[in-house]
Amino acid sequence: MSVPISFLSDFGHTDEFVGVVHGVIARIAPSTRILDITHGIGHGDVHGGAMALTRAVQYMPNGVFLAVVDPGVGTDRKAIAARTPVGYFVGPDNGLLAPAVAMVGGADLIVSLEDDRYQLPAKGATFAGRDIFGPVAAVLASGQAEIEDLGPALDPGSISPLLIPLAEPAGNGAVRGSVLWVDTFGNIQFNVSPEDLGALGIEEGDDVLVSFNMEEFRVVWGSTYGDVEEGEAILHVDSHGQIAIAVRGGRADEDFSFGVGDTVVLGRPDGGNRIQLQIAGENRGQEETSDQ
Amino acid sequence: MSVPISFLSDFGHTDEFVGVVHGVIARIAPSTRILDITHGIGHGDVHGGAMALTRAVQYMPNGVFLAVVDPGVGTDRKAIAARTPVGYFVGPDNGLLAPAVAMVGGADLIVSLEDDRYQLPAKGATFAGRDIFGPVAAVLASGQAEIEDLGPALDPGSISPLLIPLAEPAGNGAVRGSVLWVDTFGNIQFNVSPEDLGALGIEEGDDVLVSFNMEEFRVVWGSTYGDVEEGEAILHVDSHGQIAIAVRGGRADEDFSFGVGDTVVLGRPDGGNRIQLQIAGENRGQEETSDQ
Amino acid sequence: MSVPISFLSDFGHTDEFVGVVHGVIARIAPSTRILDITHGIGHGDVHGGAMALTRAVQYMPNGVFLAVVDPGVGTDRKAIAARTPVGYFVGPDNGLLAPAVAMVGGADLIVSLEDDRYQLPAKGATFAGRDIFGPVAAVLASGQAEIEDLGPALDPGSISPLLIPLAEPAGNGAVRGSVLWVDTFGNIQFNVSPEDLGALGIEEGDDVLVSFNMEEFRVVWGSTYGDVEEGEAILHVDSHGQIAIAVRGGRADEDFSFGVGDTVVLGRPDGGNRIQLQIAGENRGQEETSDQ
Repeated sequence: MSVPISFLSDFGHTDEFVGVVHGVIARIAPSTRILDITHGIGHGDVHGGAMALTRAVQYMPNGVFLAVVDPGVGTDRKAIAARTPVGYFVGPDNGLLAPAVAMVGGADLIVSLEDDRYQLPAKGATFAGRDIFGPVAAVLASGQAEIEDLGPALDPGSISPLLIPLAEPAGNGAVRGSVLWVDTFGNIQFNVSPEDLGALGIEEGDDVLVSFNMEEFRVVWGSTYGDVEEGEAILHVDSHGQIAIAVRGGRADEDFSFGVGDTVVLGRPDGGNRIQLQIAGENRGQEETSDQ
Repeated sequence: MSVPISFLSDFGHTDEFVGVVHGVIARIAPSTRILDITHGIGHGDVHGGAMALTRAVQYMPNGVFLAVVDPGVGTDRKAIAARTPVGYFVGPDNGLLAPAVAMVGGADLIVSLEDDRYQLPAKGATFAGRDIFGPVAAVLASGQAEIEDLGPALDPGSISPLLIPLAEPAGNGAVRGSVLWVDTFGNIQFNVSPEDLGALGIEEGDDVLVSFNMEEFRVVWGSTYGDVEEGEAILHVDSHGQIAIAVRGGRADEDFSFGVGDTVVLGRPDGGNRIQLQIAGENRGQEETSDQ
Repeated sequence: MSVPISFLSDFGHTDEFVGVVHGVIARIAPSTRILDITHGIGHGDVHGGAMALTRAVQYMPNGVFLAVVDPGVGTDRKAIAARTPVGYFVGPDNGLLAPAVAMVGGADLIVSLEDDRYQLPAKGATFAGRDIFGPVAAVLASGQAEIEDLGPALDPGSISPLLIPLAEPAGNGAVRGSVLWVDTFGNIQFNVSPEDLGALGIEEGDDVLVSFNMEEFRVVWGSTYGDVEEGEAILHVDSHGQIAIAVRGGRADEDFSFGVGDTVVLGRPDGGNRIQLQIAGENRGQEETSDQ
């Protein structure tokens, strides 16, 4: 009897890294199923990996979550396993696991993976996915070891958090947020919730003023892509419940210049932004007041 | 007891979309096997997805065919399931499923996926693969629902077809076709069959005149790549029984300028094309009469 | 009862090739597990495929190793299966399988896949993965045929080898090697072992002079990435026991201009290279004596 392993990494599909981790797990736990969440995280992009894991975790079966985005491999960063209500998380202690663990209810036990009985003898110190994390995931999934066997317990307070920027009031009927994710279709997700906009008195169907640096865009908050014409931008609640911007039949990342981490202000077109608009010499009601 | 799900999409491998659909299916139907046909279809390329599904379907095990290339998500396009002799097809009603369904013998029942008992409560209307198509595929594969349970039956005549261009006589001993596919190795497949060439009196071993815009190329119709030298082009019957052009040890898509959807004329070098050649001021028998 | 199939190819993930081979195997051997080693080998890169298979093979479960990098498909290259201590290798006879077969102890039987009872009727001669290698892997994995059934035995001496360059003494306390692999993270692996360096009197912790064309770099031989600062290069024993060069927090392939197949000399900074340094007008002890 074994639970499944859901596996995320930045290994890509050019080399054999993903396959080798599957092989290592299959040799230790032949009947354990492995689901690949994605291996397309940017190399060393801990933040991007953490966001993807957090978005995915609630849709994956309970079991083991194996996540390896590990730019600090070969330094003194710890390798950890965490016990949570939905199963075990295994990966480097660099913030990668923290948001997903928090989302599923937190960890009641975190250990440092120091017992080499459950690791492969390594030829080097650079492929912890193969030598440490994969084997540990396999023994946890198949019940060949308890988490307590894997190494000493750590103080949860000593675990590396991941700083995720929060949306905050920007004054003048607006909220200052940032871009969390640009997906492969070019859709741009903000760390802004529908409630954040609601608190400003903005409702679905209203126009929203999107400000980035010196650019301003007026975009309708719609329900579905069908609410706008082909080629038009739409602000909407995305499939994770966040406010996102998309272009029907197009790519928002080509029409807008903000990317992951950029600060963007969303607000009421008729709010205090009017002042800014006047200062900028622009008139209300223009579709786009960018100077580009 | 469960049948396998064969899954094709344009989700790519950068984000977690494919993994999340696997997760959703695994939560609903833990023992159902999922085979990934490909997730590398161009974003929103319904035609390319339909062609790939059609090429693949006869090689996949009977079961459920889950296909998601869905640029109209969030509009009023329908979500459908179709019952065929080889199993169920699940996806958007945008033509993606039509050619594969036709190839396997047609559908005797098509339903509109409107019963939300078999769907996930969606946070937005943009990830139907996760919220609608994946869950429906899972319940069909595992027998947790009958197709009749999923929504009202549709008139098969109301389903969106996919227009696939047919090869047609071009006069002068030639056939006018178009490019169906350029594969990852650079091979170029036409919608022209060996029978189309045979009807012109062209046989394997003959040279064929390939005309595209103002360019003309003389290419041998060979049996295998070994019939030409390294770097030479060859017309051959490809692995799907279609006429295709390849370059031994090279890439046809680099040596020829036609791509998917382009119209190309294939004919006898000694046919009426002679007139065209004379008009173009070119002599018969040149390997290549392109003016480039 | 079936053993797993570990599958490597250059098919990529754009088209449905990988999925179709999975489908063909699943139709023949429904309970056989397939592990994808990688399908990201460069198109037709037999050497790269052979290296990846060799690196992976010891980590995959015993069973069938299906490898398809086959630029000679449709020529007279043979299709083969080889019996080894860890299971069967199936693929084209072009050197792809040779180093991995040698690594696991060699083959005691090699057959030419000529019996078409265990192959699909092919529409063309260009997709041997689907029509020959996949079906053969499936019947071997599931025990539906013995290797002797698949075709006539071949003289092992007639099998295509793969030439892998060996490191050799370069005089003056140096070794001449070449680049075997640049991985997706930009790390550069040489065909030089720690023992090769040890024979020169170089020990971990020493600096090593890395010479390529007219460029020379002084790089420390460290134990882990943590031994150097962010952005600094380090020579280390990689996860396969080979000497490799990496840049902590960066990409070695961006900082160094040598790539796969290039000849590089590694030696003692205080060896005979001193003379070369003087000729080049450079002083000892500089971090980098490249003229760039």
